[in-house]
Order: sequence, then C-alpha cells, then structure tokens
Amino acid sequence: MTRESIERAHELIAPHIHRTPILTNGYLNQLSSAKLYFKCENFQKIGAFKMRGAAYAISQLDELQNSKGVITHSSGNHAQAVALASKRMGIKATIVMPETAPKVKIAAVKDYGAKVVFCEANIDSRETTVNDIQSREGQVFIPPFDHEDIITGQATCAKELIEDTDQPLDIIICPVGGGGLLAGSALACHYFSNDTKVYAGEPKGADDAYRSMKSGKREFNTSTNTIADGLLTHLGAINYEIMKKHVTDILAVNDHEIKEAMRLIWERMKIIIEPSCAVPLAAILKNESIFRGKRIGIILTGGNVDLDAYFKNL
Amino acid sequence: MTRESIERAHELIAPHIHRTPILTNGYLNQLSSAKLYFKCENFQKIGAFKMRGAAYAISQLDELQNSKGVITHSSGNHAQAVALASKRMGIKATIVMPETAPKVKIAAVKDYGAKVVFCEANIDSRETTVNDIQSREGQVFIPPFDHEDIITGQATCAKELIEDTDQPLDIIICPVGGGGLLAGSALACHYFSNDTKVYAGEPKGADDAYRSMKSGKREFNTSTNTIADGLLTHLGAINYEIMKKHVTDILAVNDHEIKEAMRLIWERMKIIIEPSCAVPLAAILKNESIFRGKRIGIILTGGNVDLDAYFKNL
Repeated sequence: MTRESIERAHELIAPHIHRTPILTNGYLNQLSSAKLYFKCENFQKIGAFKMRGAAYAISQLDELQNSKGVITHSSGNHAQAVALASKRMGIKATIVMPETAPKVKIAAVKDYGAKVVFCEANIDSRETTVNDIQSREGQVFIPPFDHEDIITGQATCAKELIEDTDQPLDIIICPVGGGGLLAGSALACHYFSNDTKVYAGEPKGADDAYRSMKSGKREFNTSTNTIADGLLTHLGAINYEIMKKHVTDILAVNDHEIKEAMRLIWERMKIIIEPSCAVPLAAILKNESIFRGKRIGIILTGGNVDLDAYFKNL
Repeated sequence: MTRESIERAHELIAPHIHRTPILTNGYLNQLSSAKLYFKCENFQKIGAFKMRGAAYAISQLDELQNSKGVITHSSGNHAQAVALASKRMGIKATIVMPETAPKVKIAAVKDYGAKVVFCEANIDSRETTVNDIQSREGQVFIPPFDHEDIITGQATCAKELIEDTDQPLDIIICPVGGGGLLAGSALACHYFSNDTKVYAGEPKGADDAYRSMKSGKREFNTSTNTIADGLLTHLGAINYEIMKKHVTDILAVNDHEIKEAMRLIWERMKIIIEPSCAVPLAAILKNESIFRGKRIGIILTGGNVDLDAYFKNL
C-alpha cells in the first residue's frame, strides 16, 4: 500500500463513488472550541464509505475471477457495497446474510441484483455458509475490512478530506470497528499530509482497538454491547499493525455520549447518521484537552438507520 | 419588487445567510422520471429559509427604527429568524410566542438574545399581545410573509437555485403556506429565468392557495388539519396577487403522500426535513404528467423537527 496505489485506486473507483461534500457547523465549532470538517460519507453511494473499499477490491479481480463472481457475508453496509459495486462492474455477487438482518437491507441488496443466501445469526454460520458455496461455485471472497485492497480503497476518503479542505488539518478522526477505514485514513495522512495526526473513537462496549493500543498487542472482544452496531467486529490483523505505527490514539466513549453526539449532528446539521458515525464527535467533546483550537477532519461514515420507529409514530 | 431590489437584497443579506448547497439523488430521479435539484434550506442558518426575508426586512430599517427594536409573533422558524437576524445587526428583538410552542424553539430564540413574551395559543392573543407591547414601546413589526421586503428576501433562494444549476430549470417548486417564499420564487424566475415555470405544493388540510388558484379569488381556511405544520397560515394578499400573475399551478397532496415523500428524503438523501418541506416532492410524485422528463428545482424549506420521540426510544 503506497502513495501510488492509493492514487491509482482513487482514479479507478472515481466513476463508482461520489466525491462527498464536507460540511461545517458554527454551533458545533463553538461547542468543541475547534474547527470541525465533517466528511459526509452518509451521502456516499449505498449510504456509507464501504462503497470505496468494495469497488476497489472488485476492480482488482482478473478475468477468470470476474467470470466466477464474488461472495461475502455481511448484515450491513458491506453487503450493499459489494452488491452495488458488482452490479456496476457487471459481475455476479452472492451475499450471505443472517436471517435477522433488517428487511430494508436485504431488499436493497436484492435490488442491486445480488443473490442473497440466508444463514444463522452467528459468525460460524456465516463463514460455513460462505465456504460451502465458495467450494462448489468458486467465487472470490471480498473481505469486509482486513485486506490491502479494502484498506487502499477506504484511504481515498481521507485523501479527499485532505485535498478538499483549504488549510492543512491538524487531526483526522474516524470510528474504529474492524479498522479498515482507520488504517486507510492513517496511510492517507502518512502519504498526503504527514503532519496530520490520526485518532479514532471507539465505543466502550466493543473497545478492542482501545485496549490493543494500551497493551501493545492485538486484543479481542469477548462480548460486545453498544448502540454503535457498525463497530462490533474485531480489529483486523493488518489494520492493527498500521494502527500501531501511524495512529496517535484511540479514544473510548460510552453509549450515552454516542447518543448525545448523534442527536447534536441530527439536530444541528440536519443530516442523518448512524450511531457508529457519532463516535468521533463524542470523543472530541469528551477530550477537550486534545482537540481544543485544532482543525479536525471527521469522517461521518454512514447514514443507514432504521427509521421505522420514527415514521410509524409520525 | 424589481430585479434590482432582489439583487440588492441578496448582496445585503449575504453576510447573514449560507449559500446553501444543491443536492441531487439518483434514486429519486429514477422514481420521478425527472431531474431533481434540491435546494437545501434545511441547512440555512436557524434551519430554514425564513432567515432570508427576516434579515432583509431588518436591514431596511432606519436608525430611529433600529433604536426602537423589532417585534414579531411566531411559534416557529420566523421567530428564530427575527431573533438571529436582530442579534447579528445589533438590534433588540421581542418575540411573542404561544405558551404551547416547542421548548426547543423557545430556548433557541432566547439563545439568540431575544426577549420572549408568552401569549395564548391563538392568533387573536398573539396580535393583541404584539399590539399592546408595540403601543407602549414602539418596536417595528416584522411580518412573517405578506410584505414586500420579506418576499424580496425570500426571492434570493430561487435566485441562487437558478444561478447554481448548470442548465436552465424547466420548473421551480416550493411549498405554499403564507406564500412569501412562493411569491419570491415566482419573482425570481420572472426576472432571472423567465422560461422557468413555478409551481407550489400545498397540503389538502390547509389548501387555501389551491382553492384560490381554482376560483380566481383569495380563499381562506376555516379550519386546518395537516402534518405540515409550517403551512397552516392563510395566503397573504400581496402574495396572492403575485401568485395569480406568475405561478403556473398549485398542487394539493394529502398527509399520507407528505409522509411518504418525507421518508423518501430522510432515507435516500440522509437529510432531515420538516413535513412541510416534503410537500413539493409529494406533488411531483403524484403528478407525473406535469413533471416527467423535466429539470426541476425543489426548495427544501427547513429542517426543524422535534426529534425527542426518536431519541427517547433509541
């Protein structure tokens, strides 16, 4: 993963992604005593940054692989990203989804023309189902986060944030789950804005990256409990190595702080973000000593929330 | 209200407003078989286009009037607009609000440094309270919609929409309540893009403009019943005359259609809009014969909704 590979990835995926806007907000600047630049990946195709990594990973397949198609398992944004990226590149996609996945997400994946295969709602069932199909049909597995192509694709988001802000950023902060976006953001800063420090926010209820940073070895979650349902996965091995080398710190926040930050963004910025997305702002508001007076790029990772409860009572 | 007065208004209020972005959405283009340009006044200061008219009306006061301060009555966006515009121009503002106004709006008005005076939740009490204070203290009344300065200020929104789209628009559509935005939009098209037709969407539960258009005289609502709570006011007299001359048609939609359109915008565009704001998209989806294949500018008027119910259950 080099400067050149990220630049090349950016060119390759450009027709398949939006160059998402960067929003600012006077009230939130005042509240945080900082200058915040929100990179709106909730406006990205499929409603999340995952489109970047999926599009790049699929663009790297050879002709034989293309003819076999791709496969992945996901209950969330990665499922939609692989489905849409495959559709756009004319490749067959099979998505293994837990039976419990939100109906709206299943419908979206089918809308993009992917074949959906259901499994039980646990990681073993997901992986077994993928392996069974793959051994029969030979599809290429597109991993969700711990893979060089995925990381390289996600790096294009921080690259845009660096290019589209008028002065250099002191800090870029994003959430961390599996760590693909964090690793990509860290590499983008390393290559394109070396004075920009990289932080991540992580929910206390799934704080393996936070603990890994403290202990100096890769830690795992034995159980998870947080509203930030996009950040439950364990930190990837490649991502951990990049984090150790290029990330300044991981900041943990609790669910109350995440909800407060989420509401601030909905109410003040008038945009819809997922709970996972609110984690960096929660971390900024909790750690004034780190962020006060700084120019900070915040990656708002996605906006796919279930609005049923709201609209039913409207 | 001339081309020059709108241009001058735009220059005068520029330091006090955002030039709001225009968003597009592939899914909604497909659904409507048209090309939709959403002018995001939900991202405007105070979260609604009302800032434009209020800022311009207040900028037109003379020194004596400035020293007396301004007054208005409103339970909603106009209250916040007058409060913030006054604060920015160093003028004292008094806002008469019904006791039943949402706490968050009362707090916002106070935050902007305005004096809040409560009245009963009916139009008589609002007007009597304003008159009483005004006769003692001499403030200038800033009307919410039926006034040349307000209309001229609101016209700057459609002017930006015309200037910031790459090819001429076939149609501009906005919601109609009191009609200040509609009148302003019609004048902006008349002066700056004369081939662009102007439509408005109106809720069936408050359809005085729709009936006025049909009957050829100004009609009034005897009762109102709609989720689009920003559009309950009667159509202003000046606004009616401009509408008669420059607006192609008013399209009425029911609350079910409004909610469906609102949900589409929340889910697909990931932005928060008020129910009133969804009325134009509802009208477009209901009247394919008018809109199919057209380039349409849609003014999304505001994003101030009460999110308590959503976040309480999160």
